[in-house]
Amino acid sequence: VSGRIEPRTLKGFPDTLPAAARARARILRVVEGVFESFGYGPIDTPALEYAEILKGKGGDETDKQMFEFDDAGGRRVALRFDLTVPLARFVAQHQGSLVFPFRRYHAGPVWRGERPQKGREREFLQMDADLVGATGPAADAEVLQVFVSAYEAVGVGRFEVRLNDRRVLNSVLSAFGLAERATAVLRAIDKWDKVGPEGVRKEVLAAGAPADAAARVLSLEGCRGGSNEETLSRLEAVADPARREGFDATREVLSLLRAAGVDEARVRVDPLLARGLDYYTGVVFEAGLLDAPEFGSVGSGGRYDDLASLYTSTRLPGVGCSVGVTRLATALAEKGALEEDPGTDVLVTHPESGGAGPAFALASRLRRAGLRVETFPEPRKHGAQMRYADKRGIRFVATLDPDGSVQGKDLATSESFHAPAGGLAEELGRRRREAPSGGGAGA
Amino acid sequence: VSGRIEPRTLKGFPDTLPAAARARARILRVVEGVFESFGYGPIDTPALEYAEILKGKGGDETDKQMFEFDDAGGRRVALRFDLTVPLARFVAQHQGSLVFPFRRYHAGPVWRGERPQKGREREFLQMDADLVGATGPAADAEVLQVFVSAYEAVGVGRFEVRLNDRRVLNSVLSAFGLAERATAVLRAIDKWDKVGPEGVRKEVLAAGAPADAAARVLSLEGCRGGSNEETLSRLEAVADPARREGFDATREVLSLLRAAGVDEARVRVDPLLARGLDYYTGVVFEAGLLDAPEFGSVGSGGRYDDLASLYTSTRLPGVGCSVGVTRLATALAEKGALEEDPGTDVLVTHPESGGAGPAFALASRLRRAGLRVETFPEPRKHGAQMRYADKRGIRFVATLDPDGSVQGKDLATSESFHAPAGGLAEELGRRRREAPSGGGAGA
Repeated sequence: VSGRIEPRTLKGFPDTLPAAARARARILRVVEGVFESFGYGPIDTPALEYAEILKGKGGDETDKQMFEFDDAGGRRVALRFDLTVPLARFVAQHQGSLVFPFRRYHAGPVWRGERPQKGREREFLQMDADLVGATGPAADAEVLQVFVSAYEAVGVGRFEVRLNDRRVLNSVLSAFGLAERATAVLRAIDKWDKVGPEGVRKEVLAAGAPADAAARVLSLEGCRGGSNEETLSRLEAVADPARREGFDATREVLSLLRAAGVDEARVRVDPLLARGLDYYTGVVFEAGLLDAPEFGSVGSGGRYDDLASLYTSTRLPGVGCSVGVTRLATALAEKGALEEDPGTDVLVTHPESGGAGPAFALASRLRRAGLRVETFPEPRKHGAQMRYADKRGIRFVATLDPDGSVQGKDLATSESFHAPAGGLAEELGRRRREAPSGGGAGA
Repeated sequence: VSGRIEPRTLKGFPDTLPAAARARARILRVVEGVFESFGYGPIDTPALEYAEILKGKGGDETDKQMFEFDDAGGRRVALRFDLTVPLARFVAQHQGSLVFPFRRYHAGPVWRGERPQKGREREFLQMDADLVGATGPAADAEVLQVFVSAYEAVGVGRFEVRLNDRRVLNSVLSAFGLAERATAVLRAIDKWDKVGPEGVRKEVLAAGAPADAAARVLSLEGCRGGSNEETLSRLEAVADPARREGFDATREVLSLLRAAGVDEARVRVDPLLARGLDYYTGVVFEAGLLDAPEFGSVGSGGRYDDLASLYTSTRLPGVGCSVGVTRLATALAEKGALEEDPGTDVLVTHPESGGAGPAFALASRLRRAGLRVETFPEPRKHGAQMRYADKRGIRFVATLDPDGSVQGKDLATSESFHAPAGGLAEELGRRRREAPSGGGAGA
């Protein structure tokens, strides 16, 4: 072919190869199981929506990162930036056919035109659970429990969920005389662990805060550490005494998590957690892997009581969490925590001379016994078919004899064996129980 | 909020509500199980790619339907039109780290700017299985078996897979003197069931065919009917005797399907099946629901031996199938074949006076027993919480007594009962075995 096209992908839009895709599929299934155990049901929304809807809230920074264009009909459209804004639109649009409080989960790709960097892509997979139509600490605690349970079920190793409440931060900023600059100051605080105290001070001053107020913002770092109650008490001491609801709510959330049996070490109150998105109004939280902190946030969430009000006059407050599946899978892969599974249990060889009918019949029989079975799809030399099985990490190879019985090879133990076609599934089961394979070489 | 935005979606970009999403998720899981049983492993590719790559092959008609735009960096990009062209690019790009023959499956949305109509959306979900790096009837038969097995496993009622081979059609068109106009004539034939014989004749004439050749094309309808062998013999009688490989291959495919135990009634040779896409080179097939023919094709596939040659000099022939998940789910929903599952087994009520700690503890205990459990997230009146459970179709409601025991209500039988907190899971299990619920009202 002349004019061949170079096979390549856009920067930030990676392919997922089989081993990684299998690991990611496992994460999705496990998290889905957790969401379902709390009564959350699936929904889906389109990737592409009217830009005016997706840009309704979030903030200028997120708007700039949106993939936006005019479609063939001249409509201004955009790829979704997250799954939360589409959910707000969804509950406003379908409120007549939903039962509230409404619990839903949603797994799907989102698109952000950020600079690609370690673990951050422009297209990535999120998995969200949200509870819409309820307020108060029990709703917040439930979503936090869902979130913590998801990471525990996936088995991500040591992790921590940092917790704060926008009302706590607003009470503190009000006491600092920064109530009117809260949005900009929160955005500055949110960058603490990236830019350090001096970076935050500059941004707070740039937002128009007086120097003494900026110094008080920096003093919040001193509230970090100790038990959650110690952190809350230190914050409360500098907060606006007239605005205590965030403190009461946080204490009740922590109490409910204890009652539910959530490991207290998983959740740490962090006065410097603000979350950049403009739509949060109450609890905010973020998960990090303690053994892979370089990946930053691998999931987050919070309460957004006013988001749906962009689309409806019905009050539909919400709280939700988002598991960053792509980044989590990348982090687990780098830790070597991927399961190795070639995906196939048995290769049935193809006769070199052609005539694959009996091989197809044997493969069907083994599949009915629950095995994952390939037939080699072409009449190649037996040695070539064995090499294929070995490269793929497939444990068993089965070759039909002319009399209809089977010559078997166990590549995990290098043993050959012989079995009647009707007894092969049982023989393979016995061998798997006796000498479990580590998973094979994998591909 | 002033300046409220109307909550709406783009035409052809529908939301999926919980009941439909649950049904669709079930279809995905079942089909995935079938693909895995044949040794196919998951991969993923990005939604957005360089337009030149996605438009490499397919045809002018598909190019026109592509969602294409310039990204913020000035790159010409497009949303994928199918999962086959990205696969060809994927195997060309990653050939060094894949083992061939390479079996992969891929579930994901694709985008086509067609006029939306019944069961046809602009964004829809496909689930593809492909075998790359092998040619011959065994590879073709395997993919057909995978395809048929998928619809059988989902349980779609009566269905039929129509089968043909581009080489059979090319042999026939060669005998008709239409070899040089094959692409246009195949595209015309492909519309047979939509536009009828007169429509096909017009398009064949418009492609420059002489009137007698056009008449011979129309005579192909007479080859329909009877057994598959009868159809093949009738076609062979009018075909080019020097080009028989398509006939031999089709007979071998049918023979292998019989050997594998595939129900012969599922697959029917249809001389008028051509498939519009330009990249097919051998076997082509398409699935339809016999009790819902108005939905047209609910899946299709075929062999594309030259597709990867757009991106690499390595020969990587392929054959694959695509299950049209969105259209299949819509068809099953209209037949009332959706499972009704509220997603939640038990509602634990929230005390009207607040203090949900014990309710959270009970819910955690029930979840550990494998139940799907909600706690009502706010302190509302008991009657309101009962009405919520009823509307949602949740069967059991559990309310903690001050002594720590549980007052239960079985909404399927309207019975009240009493149980210790530690014995509730067992009690609910007993009730479910004795009086299985139909699923409840659902929401």
